[in-house]
Amino acid sequence: MTRLVAGVDVGGTKVLGCVVDVDAPGAVILEQRAPTPTGVEPLLATIVDVVDGLRAGLGGVAGIDLAAVGVGVPALVDKGGILRFAAHLPGVTALDLASEVSGRLGRSVTVDNDANCAAMAEVRLGAAVGFEDAVVVTLGTGIGAGIVSEGRLFRGARGFAGEPGHMQVDRDGLPCPCGRRGCWERYASGSGLGHLGREAARAGRLAVLAGRPGGADAVQGEDVVALARQGDVGALDVLDEFARWVAVGLADLVDLFDPEVVVVGGGLIDAGVLLLEPVRRHFAEMVLGAGHRELPRVEPALLGPSAGAIGAALLAADRLR
Amino acid sequence: MTRLVAGVDVGGTKVLGCVVDVDAPGAVILEQRAPTPTGVEPLLATIVDVVDGLRAGLGGVAGIDLAAVGVGVPALVDKGGILRFAAHLPGVTALDLASEVSGRLGRSVTVDNDANCAAMAEVRLGAAVGFEDAVVVTLGTGIGAGIVSEGRLFRGARGFAGEPGHMQVDRDGLPCPCGRRGCWERYASGSGLGHLGREAARAGRLAVLAGRPGGADAVQGEDVVALARQGDVGALDVLDEFARWVAVGLADLVDLFDPEVVVVGGGLIDAGVLLLEPVRRHFAEMVLGAGHRELPRVEPALLGPSAGAIGAALLAADRLR
Repeated sequence: MTRLVAGVDVGGTKVLGCVVDVDAPGAVILEQRAPTPTGVEPLLATIVDVVDGLRAGLGGVAGIDLAAVGVGVPALVDKGGILRFAAHLPGVTALDLASEVSGRLGRSVTVDNDANCAAMAEVRLGAAVGFEDAVVVTLGTGIGAGIVSEGRLFRGARGFAGEPGHMQVDRDGLPCPCGRRGCWERYASGSGLGHLGREAARAGRLAVLAGRPGGADAVQGEDVVALARQGDVGALDVLDEFARWVAVGLADLVDLFDPEVVVVGGGLIDAGVLLLEPVRRHFAEMVLGAGHRELPRVEPALLGPSAGAIGAALLAADRLR
Repeated sequence: MTRLVAGVDVGGTKVLGCVVDVDAPGAVILEQRAPTPTGVEPLLATIVDVVDGLRAGLGGVAGIDLAAVGVGVPALVDKGGILRFAAHLPGVTALDLASEVSGRLGRSVTVDNDANCAAMAEVRLGAAVGFEDAVVVTLGTGIGAGIVSEGRLFRGARGFAGEPGHMQVDRDGLPCPCGRRGCWERYASGSGLGHLGREAARAGRLAVLAGRPGGADAVQGEDVVALARQGDVGALDVLDEFARWVAVGLADLVDLFDPEVVVVGGGLIDAGVLLLEPVRRHFAEMVLGAGHRELPRVEPALLGPSAGAIGAALLAADRLR
């Protein structure tokens, strides 16, 4: 019998659902998406809608239904599936997401941190296949991470482990919505690249971008990547500066977790070697004892924007075994 | 039958050995110490001398000898007991310490990172008894850490995990012997407190210390602590600034490892609540999602300067079981 599970990834802007076959999870059978609403009730309703949409998509196949549902959220989630704190989901705290969604769907629901889900997907099906110890970092609006140790997610005492985005990397650095200054994700996320790009444009180092409508203030991370692809020296410099910031945190994570592989995901990874090459170069200079130890490989994530949803499905499937 | 094990802690300045009863490890039976020499052969000879000294001390008791020896070193040690890199032991790299010492002593020898040893001691016998998930940080000349997860040391893929001393906490910060800038241990170690003290003395904020022979340049961390104990406002301010730096790294470690307890050791802990109170205060503001989660306790280490040697003995004893 085919056993299907759904995974739902709640992002800052969209909710993405997918259906995966427990026994052949490599191929996503269906996808469904919706915008992320504001507030607890609308969020719960959207998750349920996305899952209902997936079930409707399966409806044509007789006897096929979802055995379980996994949900990934950009939040601190405790081991009981309670969402404790989500910087990018205003108004959502202390929410028993597993029970709420399970009650509405009449199905077993597993909830985990979105970066944990993405990490599990990359370890089982993506860039970290074959590794027992991996750090999977997702550079998005913020930075998420999942730590895999001896093949299992490292969750810590309460489930909150693996949050590198707010490590302080600059004493008097940029203010962060978290209340601190100089957090890693101010520099090494997608928003961080945008910030570096605007700074460079204002300083006259990205004349092409500064001369467009909106000027320096309108520069986004994607613009820097696009320009770097054309060989623009200023844009390549900004990308190198950004890569250095990425490497700072990756080296910290390697000093602390000593994985076999570091997987870097998120939209910016589309920049390919333009980003990976300088990240690897800076990283190799920063890890403690580099030159006296084998360094972990730094690899791009393979599963793209569906990694979180696929991983949520995999974690739900684990509960069925 | 009484089974005894020896633990040897190789520090930057001294080598400390102790003997522990496997079945009642709480009491240290004997101690022995020697200055840390420079170079590989002198280091091996000193370790052997310290263990021989311990055995001589046991000599009066018929039929009593050491069942095993554990050695802790301030270094990256791989899972095979090979010392890969030690910032504070010049000239010592790629040394198969376990085999070398074992060959000379004719006994089974276990080698581990010194901070891992100290962490194991605090978890089994000290401030983290009863906790399965602990981060034990030692603030000495540098900063060492041992991460305990589900009662076991978290070692990473090759054994190098748990090195927080070189996390970058300030972008253009103080240069570090490791080659990077702004490493946590430049600020939050014993040497870091000395640096902050000298800065404050030069700026006229520690007039009592600046007026002594040697002036501001001679100020050490202990001087700041001693003055703070007398209620000097300038010294208490420096201690608060130092505590903030300590808290920066502790909060990073909690974001990443989510332990139940954070134990802080090293000589500075003698400052007691004068240091712990401001560390706890800053820490509670810095952990991600503070206010929405139960925060780990921050506790002083209980085993003092012998923690590393005791832990090395405990790890050697584990191999006997």
